[in-house]
Amino acid sequence: MPEVMNRAWIMASRPIGEPERENFELVESRVPEPQHGDVLIRTLYMSLDPYMRGRMRSGPSYATPLEPGEVMTGEVVARVEESESSAYTVGDVVRARIGWQEWGVVPDHTLKMVDSSLGPISTALGVLGMPGLTAYFGLLEVGKPKAGDVLVVSAASGAVGAVVGQIGRINGCRVIGVAGSDEKCAYVVDDLGFDAAINYKTQDVTAEFGRLCPDGIDVYFDNVGGPVLDAVFENLAKGARIAICGQISQYNAIDPPQGPRNIGNLLRTQSTAQGLMVTNYELQHEVGRARLAEWVRDGQLKYREDVVDGFENAPAAFIGLLRGENFGKRLVKVSE
Amino acid sequence: MPEVMNRAWIMASRPIGEPERENFELVESRVPEPQHGDVLIRTLYMSLDPYMRGRMRSGPSYATPLEPGEVMTGEVVARVEESESSAYTVGDVVRARIGWQEWGVVPDHTLKMVDSSLGPISTALGVLGMPGLTAYFGLLEVGKPKAGDVLVVSAASGAVGAVVGQIGRINGCRVIGVAGSDEKCAYVVDDLGFDAAINYKTQDVTAEFGRLCPDGIDVYFDNVGGPVLDAVFENLAKGARIAICGQISQYNAIDPPQGPRNIGNLLRTQSTAQGLMVTNYELQHEVGRARLAEWVRDGQLKYREDVVDGFENAPAAFIGLLRGENFGKRLVKVSE
Repeated sequence: MPEVMNRAWIMASRPIGEPERENFELVESRVPEPQHGDVLIRTLYMSLDPYMRGRMRSGPSYATPLEPGEVMTGEVVARVEESESSAYTVGDVVRARIGWQEWGVVPDHTLKMVDSSLGPISTALGVLGMPGLTAYFGLLEVGKPKAGDVLVVSAASGAVGAVVGQIGRINGCRVIGVAGSDEKCAYVVDDLGFDAAINYKTQDVTAEFGRLCPDGIDVYFDNVGGPVLDAVFENLAKGARIAICGQISQYNAIDPPQGPRNIGNLLRTQSTAQGLMVTNYELQHEVGRARLAEWVRDGQLKYREDVVDGFENAPAAFIGLLRGENFGKRLVKVSE
Repeated sequence: MPEVMNRAWIMASRPIGEPERENFELVESRVPEPQHGDVLIRTLYMSLDPYMRGRMRSGPSYATPLEPGEVMTGEVVARVEESESSAYTVGDVVRARIGWQEWGVVPDHTLKMVDSSLGPISTALGVLGMPGLTAYFGLLEVGKPKAGDVLVVSAASGAVGAVVGQIGRINGCRVIGVAGSDEKCAYVVDDLGFDAAINYKTQDVTAEFGRLCPDGIDVYFDNVGGPVLDAVFENLAKGARIAICGQISQYNAIDPPQGPRNIGNLLRTQSTAQGLMVTNYELQHEVGRARLAEWVRDGQLKYREDVVDGFENAPAAFIGLLRGENFGKRLVKVSE
């Protein structure tokens, strides 16, 4: 094998508040020789997701926190360049959890084959990947939508939110999106078929809920937390289900954020809030993926990707994601 | 029928913050003649419960708020004094929702017979009544305890909490109570068989949870909200269930209370918080009541009543209840 140099983004230091370029460092190293059972892969697309901010934080989480000097966590779609495994051959396209790296040498059992008949390979990180499955299982298993329910979803044009809203529509819900620009609001209504959208930056979200759903919200799929969640708590229908999927408005907080003590509204309305994790539904992932692919194929489920070109731009693209600058699923295109 | 004068406590004015004696007014009126199908009852015991504070508040709740001039809400155990109904005869003991009144004339279908073979009639308002059933269904249906789980219950010596903890113990949980005095803490451990108790007024609740349940809390039955709930949120086990039954620490709040935005911990631990209402389980109440009575009979379920003598003392007894001055189920003894 000719000598291949890998580049990786490490967390150089733990961010305080909003991550800055200086918290990331690009390091180079020689790619090791694959051993028996290993596969050498080259990243094509790298996923950027809000949860990565949580990994940069110390303290308890559902995953071990990153330590300074460690490669940023994440999933990529990659091409097999060399294989010492009978399960993969050169040219296969796979998903791998190698983090923010251009190359990887990994044991074959850590890889998943990407079925390119389902859609473009980038979708394996978006609508047909973790975000799509999070939307699918989170909405259906935690949100338990019924036809006629009012479904609210925040970060509505994002990788997860856009899928949630469309699955809600497919299930006969009245869908209200919350997003951070008029352009995003117009997109979810005009292109994705949501019934309404609220721009949380320019509108009074509580008042809009009162106007758009006077009988309350039956299902809320929460990607953001903070004031939007507060407004939902003030507008719950009886027996509402809140799926807690993300809290992006809180991820860069330095001091412990404070807000209204409104959990009593769960009592008043006999509602439920549940934290959801896509990995809880791992055994059903392929069923979910097939269903999502079918909806994409027949035009019921649309998706939008926000592809940033160039591995070197990953930190800036991630910082922008946490600011809501992306419009659709944010990916980094690393190689052709 | 000889002329009978009734006395009733009305809400004279809406309390701001902690209710004061002046918010209540004792009014007299002649008891009307029972019509066909009616029953004349005389209150023996009157229940005082924290939820009544919620009814005194305007704004949305699960029940219509009281208006000034209306009789305070509540349930009583009463004796039938006269009956124009074939379903009841003089001397029967019944439960009735006539509120804070000495006498009532009510349609027979609004009454429930008290089965005095199950226990002393006062228990129909406590361990064998609404608080006991709230504990039973809330813990079992929302908390979903398994043997070996760590169960935490607040207001642990109260009408609901004491039952929750003991049902938890019967179900094989390790039970930790949170209460507001050393005497109450000693009671739940020594008399009720809890494994441990924390005095939230003198101990650091978060630190005590860390010490007593280093692997986290599996089930929390919340009667209080506020800082105790916050401490639970910081100590959740994976897949924890929080049953939101009461928020007594918040009921007298004037300004909207603020606290840490910690709902993201549900996500981190894939936990659930659910508001519970005993009326949701109405069809199963008699099954639950029979089970509770069986446990009381065989000594597995103990209860403690805090009986205040005299109808005229109801407001003070209620104000004290909201301060946590009661020790066990607070009742007012209205007549022999």
